[in-house]
Amino acid sequence: MNPLTHLDDDGRARMVDVGAKPVTRRIAIAEGRLDTTAEVIGLVRSDGLKKADVLPTARIAGIQAAKRTSDLIPLAHIVPLDAVSIDFGFEERAITIRATVSTTARTGIEMEALTAVAVAGLTLHDMVKAIDPAAQTGGIRLIEKRGGKRGVWRADA
Amino acid sequence: MNPLTHLDDDGRARMVDVGAKPVTRRIAIAEGRLDTTAEVIGLVRSDGLKKADVLPTARIAGIQAAKRTSDLIPLAHIVPLDAVSIDFGFEERAITIRATVSTTARTGIEMEALTAVAVAGLTLHDMVKAIDPAAQTGGIRLIEKRGGKRGVWRADA
Amino acid sequence: MNPLTHLDDDGRARMVDVGAKPVTRRIAIAEGRLDTTAEVIGLVRSDGLKKADVLPTARIAGIQAAKRTSDLIPLAHIVPLDAVSIDFGFEERAITIRATVSTTARTGIEMEALTAVAVAGLTLHDMVKAIDPAAQTGGIRLIEKRGGKRGVWRADA
Amino acid sequence: MNPLTHLDDDGRARMVDVGAKPVTRRIAIAEGRLDTTAEVIGLVRSDGLKKADVLPTARIAGIQAAKRTSDLIPLAHIVPLDAVSIDFGFEERAITIRATVSTTARTGIEMEALTAVAVAGLTLHDMVKAIDPAAQTGGIRLIEKRGGKRGVWRADA
Amino acid sequence: MNPLTHLDDDGRARMVDVGAKPVTRRIAIAEGRLDTTAEVIGLVRSDGLKKADVLPTARIAGIQAAKRTSDLIPLAHIVPLDAVSIDFGFEERAITIRATVSTTARTGIEMEALTAVAVAGLTLHDMVKAIDPAAQTGGIRLIEKRGGKRGVWRADA
Amino acid sequence: MNPLTHLDDDGRARMVDVGAKPVTRRIAIAEGRLDTTAEVIGLVRSDGLKKADVLPTARIAGIQAAKRTSDLIPLAHIVPLDAVSIDFGFEERAITIRATVSTTARTGIEMEALTAVAVAGLTLHDMVKAIDPAAQTGGIRLIEKRGGKRGVWRADA
Repeated sequence: MNPLTHLDDDGRARMVDVGAKPVTRRIAIAEGRLDTTAEVIGLVRSDGLKKADVLPTARIAGIQAAKRTSDLIPLAHIVPLDAVSIDFGFEERAITIRATVSTTARTGIEMEALTAVAVAGLTLHDMVKAIDPAAQTGGIRLIEKRGGKRGVWRADA
Repeated sequence: MNPLTHLDDDGRARMVDVGAKPVTRRIAIAEGRLDTTAEVIGLVRSDGLKKADVLPTARIAGIQAAKRTSDLIPLAHIVPLDAVSIDFGFEERAITIRATVSTTARTGIEMEALTAVAVAGLTLHDMVKAIDPAAQTGGIRLIEKRGGKRGVWRADA
Repeated sequence: MNPLTHLDDDGRARMVDVGAKPVTRRIAIAEGRLDTTAEVIGLVRSDGLKKADVLPTARIAGIQAAKRTSDLIPLAHIVPLDAVSIDFGFEERAITIRATVSTTARTGIEMEALTAVAVAGLTLHDMVKAIDPAAQTGGIRLIEKRGGKRGVWRADA
Repeated sequence: MNPLTHLDDDGRARMVDVGAKPVTRRIAIAEGRLDTTAEVIGLVRSDGLKKADVLPTARIAGIQAAKRTSDLIPLAHIVPLDAVSIDFGFEERAITIRATVSTTARTGIEMEALTAVAVAGLTLHDMVKAIDPAAQTGGIRLIEKRGGKRGVWRADA
Repeated sequence: MNPLTHLDDDGRARMVDVGAKPVTRRIAIAEGRLDTTAEVIGLVRSDGLKKADVLPTARIAGIQAAKRTSDLIPLAHIVPLDAVSIDFGFEERAITIRATVSTTARTGIEMEALTAVAVAGLTLHDMVKAIDPAAQTGGIRLIEKRGGKRGVWRADA
Repeated sequence: MNPLTHLDDDGRARMVDVGAKPVTRRIAIAEGRLDTTAEVIGLVRSDGLKKADVLPTARIAGIQAAKRTSDLIPLAHIVPLDAVSIDFGFEERAITIRATVSTTARTGIEMEALTAVAVAGLTLHDMVKAIDPAAQTGGIRLIEKRGGKRGVWRADA
């Protein structure tokens, strides 16, 4: 069998059959970050911008992207999500992003969590690129997943 | 004026008016990477998989995502693209991704290039996550842009 | 707890977790109207236009919009619908719109019914705006819903 | 000729040919409102919710909907927009919504402004429906348009 | 050079660069057909169904699909269309479909016309499949195109 | 009752209510073909193009279209698919296309299989049209379906 499960034995892409998998409650948490300058972080965090739309805009973009994952990632299944939330944090030169998604379905939702983080990050990137063209979106990785055959998985710290 | 140009003076999000900008030829190049294990790189590069659909699937996902950028990134403009291409390279434990997009339009297409890289990376991520749940998509940044008021910009090497 | 359930305790938007809610049959009915001139109503109702595509076009737009609700309304869940139907009626200076949607799911579909009415109304609006630029789409409200924890709810007449 | 310009002489729907129209700068402004209870307005306006995501979420939904107008309204043309902004106001029992869109194109963008208002209104509706199931989205109408053959049009006050 | 222009010299897919092509008025006409039974044709043509939504539903689906071509066909460019119309005809055991699309752009719109025909045909197929599971959508081909470097092309009769 | 089940007794389109149908495992297989020249088939099959992206691009387009069926076909239900695969074959002057889709749902997925074939065919059509403007996509028909009230259905050979 091809160890890359999205390919058949001839190496051709397909959407893997999940019809025989049980419906279970599943949770996936992913994280990522936008690396930028201290100046940008200052602007985003400053008192004057407390009411600003920077983080809400990125949050909404991330939530909507989670729902569109199967439309963006060719071999991903349509999975109606039970919940999506996105949290941001600040470092001196970075905004950190964390997405938590859950479902009650036959297949995992790692890609939904990763896609939410990526699109939230790109939306922040869009808002800061005029003053920091060297900004970078990255570190997009799975932190934890629960549910399904393999139970709980957690990334190394 | 708000230095974050996507916000008005009250900090509210808006789509910036580009109506007064000239129509010019514009090019943007972005890069990123999927960090994974040497084992996965071996599988993707192995003779048996030369004909496999891994890279074409990610390439198509990236090209399509470039065209959907304005649908994913809330404050991005609809920009009909003249061309999109995506190239991959291999390192010992990474697949590198580069997207080149061009247009003849009133506004830049950095986000189109960045989005193409991110979605191509997430598509690779999707295909390797079963054997490498710790894979990471990142380093998504602009490398070069040409056209528009500011002329040529290149990232530091 | 925040009485606006789409916000967490810090006022941040999220998609509410519906994972613990039971799967039940749910129905929602919404209505709305396009207010225009007697002349337009005459054109739409006239014998010569009995075979015209005005109402079928608005009906199809409304049905398709119901299916895309989760893509339009940021915090709405993806809910596969069991059925959608849209009915129109005529008043002297208005076209009335009624959408009935049903599902077997964990969460309500009020937004699907309201979105179907709004987009059907906007589609009518589009077709009459050249002869009545002052047309108005409105009165979009829930009429009845059934299923879920709260049972039957009906709007005051 | 059929006075309903979206229909041909046999009453069949079509996308009207705009190929012979000149490219001009065009602006459209539309308004609408969500009618709800004084209690809901109090919650949305209260100090504790000043930082809340209610209005930003509706604003982003409206901006994105403006960009998707041609996908929602069957006979609308794809029109790349130069700018979109959405403003909210408060009355004792209502949130008012105003959308301003502009383009440099062959055809008008009234539907883009109206769609932005409708979807921003529905997004507010979604957030308040749990505490006010009788809320109503309406009064969606064009306020002003500029550009194109007919010049300036303004709604009666 | 690769005679398949959508591939580069290494056989990799890309969106061909149209930036150097002139903006010209372009028209494409495509046709296709749904082959079914005389019984189905009788139902669709019968007096009782003259007012029925069969053809309007397929027409709207085709028009909308023309606008979404770049989202469906991976290497197609986003091309704002000036006009789209769809006509149906009847044969004893078939419904014929013809789509005419036009634009003022840098690249051709054959795919827009072909996609409109295909999706209109599939929509008819959907409506008849319960009584004719052996129905067939086909004969989707370009009939004529005008504009661009090669001028007028017409299919053999 | 209207024998065209997508219409109500007045001939109006609606999404048929599937809420009372049992959830069962369902499979649908459809086929179609792109008819072109022997020269094109030679190019696509030639050694030099063995690694080329022609077939993977069409395969990905078909898989993604299967997932978007309810967005393209107005009266189709949203059905999360368990699996999608697409196979190609070669004849002297044709590429044959076969799509196999499966689900565990209340309603059939014939349209998903037919749509996957049509869009894969159109994607091939797009890639060959520059050297064969007379190419034709067709023969799109159901080959087999399983599951649901009527059990197994197979097309005549």
